[in-house]
Amino acid sequence: MSTSAPRKALNINNINPHAIKAQYAVRGEIASKSEVYRHQLAVPPVNGAPKLPFNTVISANIGNPQQLDQKPITFFRQVLSILEYPALLEQVQLFPADVRERAKWLLEQVGSVGAYSQSQGCLSLRKSVARFIEERDGHSANADQIFLTAGASSGVSTLLHIICSSKTTGVLIPIPQYPLYTATLALVDATPVPYYLDEPLSWATDVPAIREEITKAKAAGTELRSIVVINPGNPTGATLTEQNISDVITLAAEEHLVIMADEVYQTNVYQGKFHSFKKVLRNLQKETPKKYDHVELVSFHSVSKGMVGECGHRGGYFELVGFDEEVVAQIYKLVSISLCPPVIGQCLVELMVNPPKKGSDSYALYDKEYNDIYQGLKQRSQALHKTFGKMRGVSCQDPLGAMYLFPTITLSRKAVEAAQKEGRKPDEFYCMRLLDATGICVVPGSGFGQKEGTWHFRTTFLAPGVEWIERLEAFHEAFMTEFDS
Amino acid sequence: MSTSAPRKALNINNINPHAIKAQYAVRGEIASKSEVYRHQLAVPPVNGAPKLPFNTVISANIGNPQQLDQKPITFFRQVLSILEYPALLEQVQLFPADVRERAKWLLEQVGSVGAYSQSQGCLSLRKSVARFIEERDGHSANADQIFLTAGASSGVSTLLHIICSSKTTGVLIPIPQYPLYTATLALVDATPVPYYLDEPLSWATDVPAIREEITKAKAAGTELRSIVVINPGNPTGATLTEQNISDVITLAAEEHLVIMADEVYQTNVYQGKFHSFKKVLRNLQKETPKKYDHVELVSFHSVSKGMVGECGHRGGYFELVGFDEEVVAQIYKLVSISLCPPVIGQCLVELMVNPPKKGSDSYALYDKEYNDIYQGLKQRSQALHKTFGKMRGVSCQDPLGAMYLFPTITLSRKAVEAAQKEGRKPDEFYCMRLLDATGICVVPGSGFGQKEGTWHFRTTFLAPGVEWIERLEAFHEAFMTEFDS
Repeated sequence: MSTSAPRKALNINNINPHAIKAQYAVRGEIASKSEVYRHQLAVPPVNGAPKLPFNTVISANIGNPQQLDQKPITFFRQVLSILEYPALLEQVQLFPADVRERAKWLLEQVGSVGAYSQSQGCLSLRKSVARFIEERDGHSANADQIFLTAGASSGVSTLLHIICSSKTTGVLIPIPQYPLYTATLALVDATPVPYYLDEPLSWATDVPAIREEITKAKAAGTELRSIVVINPGNPTGATLTEQNISDVITLAAEEHLVIMADEVYQTNVYQGKFHSFKKVLRNLQKETPKKYDHVELVSFHSVSKGMVGECGHRGGYFELVGFDEEVVAQIYKLVSISLCPPVIGQCLVELMVNPPKKGSDSYALYDKEYNDIYQGLKQRSQALHKTFGKMRGVSCQDPLGAMYLFPTITLSRKAVEAAQKEGRKPDEFYCMRLLDATGICVVPGSGFGQKEGTWHFRTTFLAPGVEWIERLEAFHEAFMTEFDS
Repeated sequence: MSTSAPRKALNINNINPHAIKAQYAVRGEIASKSEVYRHQLAVPPVNGAPKLPFNTVISANIGNPQQLDQKPITFFRQVLSILEYPALLEQVQLFPADVRERAKWLLEQVGSVGAYSQSQGCLSLRKSVARFIEERDGHSANADQIFLTAGASSGVSTLLHIICSSKTTGVLIPIPQYPLYTATLALVDATPVPYYLDEPLSWATDVPAIREEITKAKAAGTELRSIVVINPGNPTGATLTEQNISDVITLAAEEHLVIMADEVYQTNVYQGKFHSFKKVLRNLQKETPKKYDHVELVSFHSVSKGMVGECGHRGGYFELVGFDEEVVAQIYKLVSISLCPPVIGQCLVELMVNPPKKGSDSYALYDKEYNDIYQGLKQRSQALHKTFGKMRGVSCQDPLGAMYLFPTITLSRKAVEAAQKEGRKPDEFYCMRLLDATGICVVPGSGFGQKEGTWHFRTTFLAPGVEWIERLEAFHEAFMTEFDS
């Protein structure tokens, strides 16, 4: 800026420092550069301009199934198309009867998808969510304690805005973690208290290690309020055992911590079984009410993941368990300021939790689509995992759940020094090189947190085919050779 | 809570005090009670239960056109239905050619409405917005400076989170105001600096009065950063003149204030003409660049209002003008944490800014629907205004714009005392009585702010027919008689 130009009101040195502090690597520098490459590939090459060494950009940085080859579930989208244009109901030949019936019912509930709903989401849709939770867990659920949201992210932000009351409020965060948590804590200016997941034990939640962190945090004057658990894990893909969950709940009961259970990947489980925190908590409460009745739990779910994969629709919900009524009222007030979650997204939540039943017209197709997606994800996870197993200096836990693998990469001193020269962390350096050489966009482990001196990256296994995996493998071999020390 | 029960982690005394401080009367106690009444009316009366003295609840508390009788624009919804279920394109007889073409084009741009878009919104849709702004203002616009949002509220929240850096950051807020502004400022813990709109002058923005507030605020140690202007006004319905806007811009230029121009009602203008801040700023910059080139402006728009009225779809945008590049990068990072605005809402923004053109298949119907809605709103505003003119102790500015009237009500000492006995503000007392007697839900002026000792309420004029207006009139007369002193 020239010295004679009048100053602007805002500059990087005077805007909200908490916003500046918030980091979100999933859409950071490497992701931005991949978008530039994507545009370069889309336009005809200018004469003399250097050609990129790849023909496609593979966005493996973000769990965005429909950006790749995943197709939406037909039943869901047929219903949504009627909600947008109810005159389609007159074309009786167009859709199966159960599609028309569901659309009619949803229209009766919401009126128009163009009208604001209740701030918390339409009541009858929340009742469907409650029924789904009851069937999943075998314990009752209450629609009044369910809030529909614009995706899980928005729900997490709401809860952290309520829970965090000052700089010294501490929230236990798994490391590695999905960076929404640390970013939001930076924004609300509270204290993230990291606890390390146990990589050799399939990234299990290590409760004794958490207790150590709690002791340290208390000694440092941090007032611990909450613990975040992501199950199945992001970025780790871990799936927690019932015992592991039970141990976390016991810890939370003893330490008076609100459990924030990020359960958006609850159907993305490829080995073992998903256990919800709600179910395990209710079981514990049945056995030892005195010890567990006071526990506060919030569980998040979303239409973005699972076999639904409807990220762009921004739909989700959270369920509150054991929260004080006055606190619930404040949560209600806070969400009412942004009026309501997208109503089409609310309807999609209803469809997700209440899909076609056996015997209905759409069941066979729904079932086939759902299972094909599930099997496809499972196979892709295994194919990618197998390749990592063959790669020099790479080790990777078995793919248990979610949409990601989070391999460890061993980098030579030469590579670490080359990274330092560029002012980058070694894993960032590796991922940037990967993008530049292959068009494959992944996220460095440092964006999620990792143990000092270890390096990882997160990749989705959503991309179809094996050609991109071969690109990744060839790059890795060349990289390792270049930086052999 | 019994003393023996273990304490909960969260209670009303330890959660975020800034969240508790945030007030949002549009969906406050009276609105909640109206929902209870609505449910009571929907179920068969229990024997012996007292019958409500009305048969319908009229939600005049919120600008939610499609909750009442406003129908969506056919072209928009036909396109959206195809976006949800692209197989409808195969039914060539189903939709006009321009509907199918637009849907195809939008699908090419976004891929699937179930995929995350860029954090800032899909680029080609932002280009459509830029073209719309160019045509509206006669000045260039840049898609890179346009951010698609989940409604204007989400954009306002983003900007205030960037602008406000500490408790002493001051933001000038019109009084009366839409409470989103004070609620968000409470949440980010910054200082709202109220300036009063000039009621006798059709609620104009009184720049000399603002200068006085600035002087006072500076003396109190407040660092002023921004001024909010809502044009057309909410709750006032004011439409600012070009001169008025120019004066505000000059003030902002001199005082180094970011202008936050809430222009969501830009097509809801029933007298006079809408002038955008961007156009007036660019004109001023052309004449006196030195004086105006540094001005920072953000303008908000939405699909929720105007003749579109698609509140439930949560779509909108903001355009940044004159912002420092590093600040724009921080805004980008902040929005990327919540991934992207709803993609169907993004497409609806594109449809709003790029409706059917003369000569296209859908033009005649679009034009008719648009004008019918416009004329309907205008007539309803006049009918309601005329009734206010007849009511004892009520005075109301002419309906110029937006979706609201904000009459002054003169309340007797007896009424004020009766309110005090209930622990309510007099306007709250009046509005609660109105709801209990008639089922009509409006918002007390105290929810928006008003000059000390004056009382108002905000009502939309969206509800059809005159029966509800007669109910309101009869209630008012009875109330005045009851509290005659």
